[in-house]
Formats: sequence, structure tokens, C-alpha cells
Amino acid sequence: MTLARRKTVMTSRGPIETPVFMPVGTAATVKAVTVDELEAMQTQIILGNTYHLMLRPGHETIRKLGGLHQFMGWNKPILTDSGGFQVFSLAKLRKMSEEGVDFQSHIDGTRYLLTPEFANEIQWALGSDIIMVLDECPPYPVTETEARRAMELTIRWAQRTLIIHQKRLEEEALKNSSYKPLLFGIIQGSHFTHLRKECAERLLELHEKHVQKGGCGFSGFAIGGLAVGEPKEVLYEMAAAAAPFIPEKFPRYAMGLGQPEDLVELIGYGIDMFDCVIPTRNARNGELFTSLGDIQIKQAQYKEDSRPIDENCSCPVCKKYCRAYLRHLYLAKEILSSRFNSIHNLHYYATLTRNIRDVLEKKEGKEDSDQKENYYDEFRKSFYRNRTRSSDNNH
Amino acid sequence: MTLARRKTVMTSRGPIETPVFMPVGTAATVKAVTVDELEAMQTQIILGNTYHLMLRPGHETIRKLGGLHQFMGWNKPILTDSGGFQVFSLAKLRKMSEEGVDFQSHIDGTRYLLTPEFANEIQWALGSDIIMVLDECPPYPVTETEARRAMELTIRWAQRTLIIHQKRLEEEALKNSSYKPLLFGIIQGSHFTHLRKECAERLLELHEKHVQKGGCGFSGFAIGGLAVGEPKEVLYEMAAAAAPFIPEKFPRYAMGLGQPEDLVELIGYGIDMFDCVIPTRNARNGELFTSLGDIQIKQAQYKEDSRPIDENCSCPVCKKYCRAYLRHLYLAKEILSSRFNSIHNLHYYATLTRNIRDVLEKKEGKEDSDQKENYYDEFRKSFYRNRTRSSDNNH
Repeated sequence: MTLARRKTVMTSRGPIETPVFMPVGTAATVKAVTVDELEAMQTQIILGNTYHLMLRPGHETIRKLGGLHQFMGWNKPILTDSGGFQVFSLAKLRKMSEEGVDFQSHIDGTRYLLTPEFANEIQWALGSDIIMVLDECPPYPVTETEARRAMELTIRWAQRTLIIHQKRLEEEALKNSSYKPLLFGIIQGSHFTHLRKECAERLLELHEKHVQKGGCGFSGFAIGGLAVGEPKEVLYEMAAAAAPFIPEKFPRYAMGLGQPEDLVELIGYGIDMFDCVIPTRNARNGELFTSLGDIQIKQAQYKEDSRPIDENCSCPVCKKYCRAYLRHLYLAKEILSSRFNSIHNLHYYATLTRNIRDVLEKKEGKEDSDQKENYYDEFRKSFYRNRTRSSDNNH
Repeated sequence: MTLARRKTVMTSRGPIETPVFMPVGTAATVKAVTVDELEAMQTQIILGNTYHLMLRPGHETIRKLGGLHQFMGWNKPILTDSGGFQVFSLAKLRKMSEEGVDFQSHIDGTRYLLTPEFANEIQWALGSDIIMVLDECPPYPVTETEARRAMELTIRWAQRTLIIHQKRLEEEALKNSSYKPLLFGIIQGSHFTHLRKECAERLLELHEKHVQKGGCGFSGFAIGGLAVGEPKEVLYEMAAAAAPFIPEKFPRYAMGLGQPEDLVELIGYGIDMFDCVIPTRNARNGELFTSLGDIQIKQAQYKEDSRPIDENCSCPVCKKYCRAYLRHLYLAKEILSSRFNSIHNLHYYATLTRNIRDVLEKKEGKEDSDQKENYYDEFRKSFYRNRTRSSDNNH
């Protein structure tokens, strides 16, 4: 049975309709794309990277300039990560302790101690609408002992975060501010299904206790530590293992994912939110997503191809420009190539998730559970049928 | 007395109001900027580089795809250079002969023989609205003997170009086509005022003879070989030397120029058209033009500066973003930095020339020659007064 579902997540800056894909705006910009272009393709929410922004231009600078929304000219919701993942992948000379993670900036070598409290403070300074807890994301593969150690630390850090976040919410309320950022917990456990399950259950316990004492608790849960080098089957297995332990009422977020196929699969496991650099990074490498399979725009077969990237696409690039022009811009290393390819790929992701929401709305209307199942299953089959037709498309 | 003037140049794709600045679209794109953005800032005409386009994607490819306008989605006039200047500055293993210039592509080493006839054919294939003759542009400094030799060759090539261009116009007319590209001659002569004068006079003679025999003649004249390393005084002296020998009725075009100050000076010498990579190249290097002097956006003083680049500017970047954000994008090497800076700088040039046209329209309305003089002179003085106020601006 499909667990795919249609939800609405409420934030201080308005609702987010899920399933949703969140373009990654690492350094206060979705690379090569303006916020006006993101709005034109009905982007609902973008992601900002705490690690990058704390180092440059600095979260205090952004706070002084009125917050990340004001700084980059984006009025809709922003989700910020905790910085933990980037500390592990980008920073130099890391040292883990109970307190937090000590690291050196990859830009200028400055030392920082990123604690759960500080990660939360930075995200408040940025004015994030969905704040993530600081977690420890182990590499792949890892021993069970190591996975458990990281998971236990992640849980203790989540507890510390709930306390500081609650304190800030109360301080903010005293100012009569309407700003009330949501806090999401993160489930770790590497490739061990029983650890994933345990982590989900223990975070929920924390949540319940916090709420019982009048606290905010978590407003959603992410599955972290995916797409770190594990095979696709393991990735799907871990998502499938964790998702059912997150109660229906919470939005579920698969961090750092993924390919279009990953979205279609994981939505089937009940995941609601996704973020990934794939559409923009692949765009800069000339890899374009289409409804009929993907295109490497540099290929010689497109030299005099006067067709748009995707005849079924309504993005402004497909409406105006042909493959031959886009191939030329790519080969000439023109900035316009990154611009156009990024717009097209982000539009592809926006359309894919909108189409899925439409299918799920039809599904929600049905009482009969067999019929519910059919809608998403039919969509999924047709999606795969088309996506593997790339040979037709390319000739 | 100022020679500044307000003209209209008619092309197959509509009129161009001068004085005008033409953004450079080297490889079928004004770097980092879309044609929609160029239209939004009321760009009237852009320039395409024959040398770059013949090598990549190839003019025959562009012809097959419907011409340069169709290829890049730009409907207004395009002026193309002859490729000569780039052959001298970019190509490898050049060999000059009476026939043309033999060179190797800087991209893949392919050999080409660029003749006056071939340079004309390429520009026809691109569908250019203003076609330039092939000329020889000597480096600076050069001996008088060498300058004369290059000038004589340029004149013989201009004669050959008139013949082939006329032939193509007649062939095109037989097809009932409305496409009638203009042909511009180019005045060379390096830093020798008497050679500049002689070149202008002899090209005019060629023009008169061609027209008397029912030919098209030239529709305008460019002053070539400027801004090749000579001091500013020499540059202005050469433009001042050549311009008066181009009769009033012809548009005058200073190729490859320039700084905002160069435009203001040369318009005063009766020049109508300009093209230059300065606004876009400097933009990518973080150099921004403003009415109150120029800004190096990377400077620390802009770290928390919430003001727009230029409070007097109505461009979309100044309307929405602050200096601190633009500084951040530049330091983070974000593509958005090149985009925003290019739009602002091109908008600055578009506004400068539009303001000058407005001033000259007032001037044209006046009978009294003293008063005519005053309008442009007042504009010029106020322009310099403001542009040297950069210290006020930056603090």
C-alpha cells in the first residue's frame, strides 16, 4: 500500500503544500537563479545553509541587515539546516565533544565551536522559518558501535535544542513578535534499521515529554544521514524503516535528496519534504531533466537541434530557446548556460512535485483504499515508463 | 563648439536613436544577461562578434537555425564586427596577404582564411543589421610606414567589400526579402592625424563612386583602431581628427569604446555609436558604475551597507538589493554577482546615453548656437562634477 500523502505545513511565513521540493540556496542564493525566477516557478520554500552563512557573510551581519529574507529578497519560507553536515564534509580539523563540534573554517581557517545551542542561535539570527537541530551524521559505512554513539549524541543534542529553542520562543513572544520558527528533529542511525527505529521512538518520547511540560516540541522530523554513499536499496530501506515511526501528523523530510526517481519512491514511503543540489549542480554540468529522460546538452547530436529541451515543459527556457543554442552556451562556458539550465531543472522538480500533489489530491478524495493506491501507483508507473524513453528523446 | 548631435539610424529591424551604446554579445549572448533583461532596460541594438561566432557554433549552423536573432531570441537590430580585430588579438599563427588573413582558431587550431568577401558572407549568414567591412587594425605604437600600409590595405578591402555586399543585396532583393543590412566603412590610420583624414576622404570617394554607379555605398563610418593601448589624449585626438571628415548625414561609430567619460567626450566630437565590454567585464570584476563615481563592491566598507549601489538608479538590482548583499555575492563568487552587476552597469550606460539624447533634443530645438552649445556643455560639467564625488559616495 502506498503511504504517499498530501499535507500542508504551516509556518510564520505561510503554508507549504507537500510533497515539496526545496531548492538549495547555500550562500543566500539558489545558484545562478534570482528569487523572482524562483517565485515565477511557484517555489514554496528554499533552503539556506547555516555553515556557509555563519562563515560568510556571518549570521550577525545578516541579522543586522534584517535577516536572511530581507538580505536576499525572498519573502516565502526558508528552512535552514544545522550546519552539522557541512562541518563534516567541508570544514578542516574537526574535533567532536559532548559540548559540540570544534572546527576550522574552510574559507579562512577561523576556529568555531558549533554547539546545539549555537546552531539554534544562528538559525534564529538568520530568521529561518524551519530550524533543524544539530546532529551528528556518520559517514558510510560505519560500525554499529559508531552508529549508536552518533545516534545517542544526536538525541542528547536534540534534547538541549528543545530547551534553548523553547527559551527563545518565549523571549520572542515577550516582544509581541509574530516570528515563531518551527523546530524539526533529525533521525540518525546510519544503515541499521533497528537504530533508525530506536532513534525515531526516542525523539518522539522527548517530544511528548517536552509538550507535556508546555514546551513546543518538534514540528516535524527529518531522516538524516541518507545519500552519503550507500547503495540506493539501503537508502530506500532506511527511509522506509524510519518513516512509519514518525506519526502521521508530522511532516517527514528526507534531507539531501534526491534524483527525480528518489522523490517518487520516497513519497511512496510517506516522505513529504526534500532538498537537493542535484537540479542546480547538474544544470551547471549540462545535465538536463526531461519528462522523457535526461539530456547531456553537450552531445554533438544537439548541434543543430531546433527543439526545446523538453516539448512538454512550460518553463521560460523551453518556451524561447532551442537545444542547439543551449549546447552552444554550455560549450562556450557562458554564464547564461548555468542560468538557463538551472531554471529548467528547478522547473522540472517544481512540476514533478506539483503533479504528484494533484494526483494525491484525487487520491485523498477517495474512500476506497484500493482506489487510493491506484492513483499514485499509476502515476509512478507512467513516470518510469516516460523517464526510460531517453533513447527516443535523444534522436 | 560642441559637435554633439541627435540622430536616427534606420535598419531593416527598426530605428536606432543615437547617441547609443551597444552592449557586446560576443558569443550570441551579452555575458550573464538575458535578452529579456536587455529589452527591459530599453537596449536598442547589441553587437555580435563575427570571429567568435564563425568558430563556435559556426555561422552556417546559425544560418540553418534561422539566423543570430532567432538563435539567441533577440528581435531588435544587431551590429556585427568583421572579425578582423579579434583575429589580431586572439587567433594564433596569423599570416596577412592581399587576399586576406590566414589564421588558426584559438579554440581548436582549425585554419581559416578570412577575406573581405568571407567576412561579409559570415555577417550575411548571421543576419546582421549593420555589417562592418574587414579592416586591418595595427597595434600601438606603429611606424608611419606600417600605419600607411595597413590603411591602404583597409581601403582596398573596403572596395572589395562594397562590390560583394552590393551583389548580395541584389540577390536578396530577387528573393523579395525585406532584409537589407547596412554596410559601414572603417577609418584606420593609427595615431597619425593626416592618415586618419586621408583614410576618411578616400573611403568617402569610394562611397561616392559606388553610389554614382547605382551601388549601395556605405551607410555609416566607424573609427577603428582606437583604445589599443594609446594614451587617452591620443585616442581623443584621433577621434576628433577623423570625425569632421565624415559628412553630417552618416552615423559615426567609435569601435570598442569606452569608459563613461569616453562616451561623454566623444559624443562632444560628433560620435553617435559606441560598443564596449567595459560595463559587463568590469561588472564581473565587481566594479560598479554610479552617477556619483565608481564602486569596488568587494571593499570592506560595504560589509553592512544597506543602501543600493546607486540611490539615483532605477535598475531592478538597485530597487531590490543592498550593497552588503552584492558584496557577499561577489566574495562568494556566486553567478548571481555577475548577473546583478552586469544588469546594473548596462543600465548605467543605457541611462547615460538616454539622458544625453534628452539633452540633445532640447539643444536641437534651439536656433541660437550659443544656447545649443550650453545644453551639452552643462550636462558635461554636471556629469564630471558628480562622477568625481566618489569619496562622498563611498563613506
